[in-house]
Amino acid sequence: MINGSQILLIIEYDGSGYHGFQWQNGLPSIQKELEKAIRKLTGERRRVIAASRTDAGVHARGQVVGFRTRSGLAASNFISGLNHYLPGDIAVKVAYRVNSDFRIRRSPVSREYSYYILNSPTRSPMREGRAYQVANPLNIEAMNRAAQTLIGQHDFASFLSGDGSWLESTVRNVLSAEVAREGELVVFRMTANSFLPHQVRNTVGALVRVGLGRMNLDQFRSIIEARSPGRAGPTAPACGLCLDRVNYPVPLGEEAS
Amino acid sequence: MINGSQILLIIEYDGSGYHGFQWQNGLPSIQKELEKAIRKLTGERRRVIAASRTDAGVHARGQVVGFRTRSGLAASNFISGLNHYLPGDIAVKVAYRVNSDFRIRRSPVSREYSYYILNSPTRSPMREGRAYQVANPLNIEAMNRAAQTLIGQHDFASFLSGDGSWLESTVRNVLSAEVAREGELVVFRMTANSFLPHQVRNTVGALVRVGLGRMNLDQFRSIIEARSPGRAGPTAPACGLCLDRVNYPVPLGEEAS
Repeated sequence: MINGSQILLIIEYDGSGYHGFQWQNGLPSIQKELEKAIRKLTGERRRVIAASRTDAGVHARGQVVGFRTRSGLAASNFISGLNHYLPGDIAVKVAYRVNSDFRIRRSPVSREYSYYILNSPTRSPMREGRAYQVANPLNIEAMNRAAQTLIGQHDFASFLSGDGSWLESTVRNVLSAEVAREGELVVFRMTANSFLPHQVRNTVGALVRVGLGRMNLDQFRSIIEARSPGRAGPTAPACGLCLDRVNYPVPLGEEAS
Repeated sequence: MINGSQILLIIEYDGSGYHGFQWQNGLPSIQKELEKAIRKLTGERRRVIAASRTDAGVHARGQVVGFRTRSGLAASNFISGLNHYLPGDIAVKVAYRVNSDFRIRRSPVSREYSYYILNSPTRSPMREGRAYQVANPLNIEAMNRAAQTLIGQHDFASFLSGDGSWLESTVRNVLSAEVAREGELVVFRMTANSFLPHQVRNTVGALVRVGLGRMNLDQFRSIIEARSPGRAGPTAPACGLCLDRVNYPVPLGEEAS
């Protein structure tokens, strides 16, 4: 229908002020801001697709989005042009021109997320809206041992918030999962082929129970084995979550970075 | 006049919303918020003194402040009590009770500041208000060599914005100064017995000129030697600056941390 190629963008955003990536009637969304900026830059009304939809309040350092265009602008001019029209809490970091049949959402081999926990009895104004505060001391080693059990192909149904009956499958392949201290923060990093809704935040909820000594490694394992929605959690707050990177089978070109 | 001891606080704040630490008629300030919270907690009207006054928009991770009180509350209860009344962008991290003759402002042997530069052609929403963006590539090694020449006791008059005629002396003792890359950031850290107004920001302005190749090491040295206000700079934006730590001759106790 539409001739022309596709523009792929790597974008960063502070999700605090948005009801998630996806367009929702009357509510602020990342998608809406991107489509508005594209319209101002190119005069075209385009639909923007994201590699990984993020929920309300979730951040991204390396979200990948794409849209079709008839505009002949160089990819690099989409960076400066869109940044001119986007609000301060959304920025285009890199832009590529790809074939119009490139599948933004279907092609990724993996997504990488980080979850930031501020393990401190007092809140941190310099981390406000960027980390989940846990006041009691966390046992990082125990959390990391539990995280290791997530690696591999498993049915992660227990890490769903709802019943997930609308999902084709709840099996996911976790490539890496690690809990580490980074200064005053405890960071959980997880890479998987794709993620169930709320999977990282429900995993963090369960890992924090382990870190506080309220659950042992066997109990954590039994959550995975139960394959029963709602068993993990409680769902950790959105503010601690950040989509770091989306990996494609062939690395995206560097021509316009 | 006032009997009783003094409470010392280590506080963290995001200075974005404030016209600096110090009370100014009708304008939001850190001091005003602290005094308001103290009044709500203790019923006392107290004046809060800071170890290092920070300017509008400047942040702090380790500011030290003190006030006298007749309240018998345990130091640790000042942490939770004041945090209850303080806004989200200011937090008490640690509290101590010290003698009423302890001099918050006169006693420190040194102050440590960090200045964050985002060296990237595109802005970073996750660093918004926390770093100064420099689009062109910076030569970190050249900047660090220039920073080394600041170490020692010098007359830093060239690093003043105004004429500084109201200052007793413009000689300061710089204990350490270093420029290093930390991920996508370039961080300048500087420790000195005390600092002239705008000294760090004017130093950063000059270091960035070195980093961009617009000034060489000899020219940077000649700025120090000129002892002439306005020679350094331009004054780098407040948002990149953070007061990390104030050091006293005897380390502050740990009893209420």
